[in-house]
Amino acid sequence: MPKLDFDIITLGHGSGGVLTNKLLDSGVFDLLTNDILEERHDGAIINMNEKIAFSTDSFLVSPIFFPGGNIGELAVNGTVNDLAMCGAVPKYLSLSFILEEGLKMTEFWEVLVAIKFACENANVKVVTGDTKVVEKGKGDKIFINTSGIGNVHPKANIGKTRIQIGDKIIVSGNIATHGMAIMSIREGLEFESTIQSDTTNLNHTIINLIEQFGNDIHLLTDPTRGGIATVLKEIALTSDFGVDIFQRDLPMDDQVASACELLGIDPLYVANEGLFLSFVDASIANSFLEVLQNDKNGKNAKIIGSVVDTHPNQVILESSIGGKRVVSMLPGEQLPRIC
Amino acid sequence: MPKLDFDIITLGHGSGGVLTNKLLDSGVFDLLTNDILEERHDGAIINMNEKIAFSTDSFLVSPIFFPGGNIGELAVNGTVNDLAMCGAVPKYLSLSFILEEGLKMTEFWEVLVAIKFACENANVKVVTGDTKVVEKGKGDKIFINTSGIGNVHPKANIGKTRIQIGDKIIVSGNIATHGMAIMSIREGLEFESTIQSDTTNLNHTIINLIEQFGNDIHLLTDPTRGGIATVLKEIALTSDFGVDIFQRDLPMDDQVASACELLGIDPLYVANEGLFLSFVDASIANSFLEVLQNDKNGKNAKIIGSVVDTHPNQVILESSIGGKRVVSMLPGEQLPRIC
Repeated sequence: MPKLDFDIITLGHGSGGVLTNKLLDSGVFDLLTNDILEERHDGAIINMNEKIAFSTDSFLVSPIFFPGGNIGELAVNGTVNDLAMCGAVPKYLSLSFILEEGLKMTEFWEVLVAIKFACENANVKVVTGDTKVVEKGKGDKIFINTSGIGNVHPKANIGKTRIQIGDKIIVSGNIATHGMAIMSIREGLEFESTIQSDTTNLNHTIINLIEQFGNDIHLLTDPTRGGIATVLKEIALTSDFGVDIFQRDLPMDDQVASACELLGIDPLYVANEGLFLSFVDASIANSFLEVLQNDKNGKNAKIIGSVVDTHPNQVILESSIGGKRVVSMLPGEQLPRIC
Repeated sequence: MPKLDFDIITLGHGSGGVLTNKLLDSGVFDLLTNDILEERHDGAIINMNEKIAFSTDSFLVSPIFFPGGNIGELAVNGTVNDLAMCGAVPKYLSLSFILEEGLKMTEFWEVLVAIKFACENANVKVVTGDTKVVEKGKGDKIFINTSGIGNVHPKANIGKTRIQIGDKIIVSGNIATHGMAIMSIREGLEFESTIQSDTTNLNHTIINLIEQFGNDIHLLTDPTRGGIATVLKEIALTSDFGVDIFQRDLPMDDQVASACELLGIDPLYVANEGLFLSFVDASIANSFLEVLQNDKNGKNAKIIGSVVDTHPNQVILESSIGGKRVVSMLPGEQLPRIC
């Protein structure tokens, strides 16, 4: 075992932020290393005659029912979106349950029905599965793993190595929505209307963009755990470039902004679900934005920043009043069990 | 939701036996139905230009370290073997952890190292992954999901529909070993030597057999949860035929037999890991057995029965003293958290 400065697993190791990276970099990646895993993208792109993408995610959101969805559709959409971020057309899913003894069948059924409809919306099929049960108190109602495979679109050419100076960074909609939907019900916050999770499948939106802009889309990624800040910092760290983003351009729902303020949470670190970031060639940025804004999943899309060579490996946020600050990864665990 | 005669999930729903089937048949399969899922095999065989197999399993064995292995190699071997049972050469795995807050890093590391070596033995690569953490008391040290894909061997032609009257049923080795290894340490049983789990990867053994006997191998399946009895009964139920097996031909280690007797457990229902059942054309049964017995994973292989038309959907065991009894699926949960 490598030398570590921690002896036990803490919740922060599951945050998707600094500690998750620390855990994975402590030797986990080194131990299991291979070319495909080293890409560290949302899924693996595998040559098996025809090029396919392969991705996995376990879901353990608490509570399992939340405004705007439940763990079932989250599990389908999460893996569907990871495949879409690889430029793939998601096709087949596996579905594996870890159920807690005593789970109500009515709840299980509601989750299953959500899975069914989410599969229909995304046009994917569950083709293999597994069901396990743990004793009461050794799980929490329901954990779901979905893994998925799909064919990489022939026009897609997506990867961190494709990012170049001048690329525009486009966010597909309002940020911090999913995280604050979960947080609001956990904290019992009340607003004029309930904050709804943005969980949805993005694959049709993505494929439409790939068909139109193909090679000029350099990277796609969905900022789930750890939020936009963590994802951008991860990308900056693995490239020779830096990233500039502008706070005034970050689209956010008013109620989400209020909830973040009330709880003292920085929306840059809050998990999103039905949201993605695109790094595109500057020459197509405006037409890309126009197409995206005409899509139901991109109505609030905005260009939020660009790739620069002035501060390699750094993400710099220019605040609404003109100040600048360095953006790091999520340092600990902010919102456990968010997805 | 369909009408059910149970309202909550019980441990038996994860047994792999009657209750698991009842749960899946209560509407789960109907809800998610498609041609590939309906095959209900250990994995899905998918046409994506080249034919590939895709399988998933979550592992939550307790304790995570046991004589002969740990949850890490179990998770790799389990999915590798499910792919092999589809006649596929396992190639890529996903690896998803649900860790409990407070897990010791030394334990996590030992599991990871076992994963690494199991991957090397099976010649598969982990190409994508996920790490989540739940609060202390909401999980149990470590749960692992592995999903896998591989190319179906061109000579493989495996499926329940290929079974025919007269097929010989061959078991690859001693039965009930994994389950009794776990059970013995849980119950603190002591024997002259410790019962070791039989967890191992079977893919090289299987591919060698497929290369030699191709089309004459009709079905391969690994009798894990629920044991040999449950797997045979499942097969009988989905075919027009029946199955005869002979107790005197069932290979079993003496200590395992003693442990079963001591605990009043029927070895037919005990989980196996590095074991498989083959349904082969009667014409090749003896040469198949000979090849298998020369393989390190088949030294104790035996022909244990055959497919008959006299009692459709039924599995009949002829006991060592000549009596006959009907074999059903595992009715409840015998050994929770066995894999």
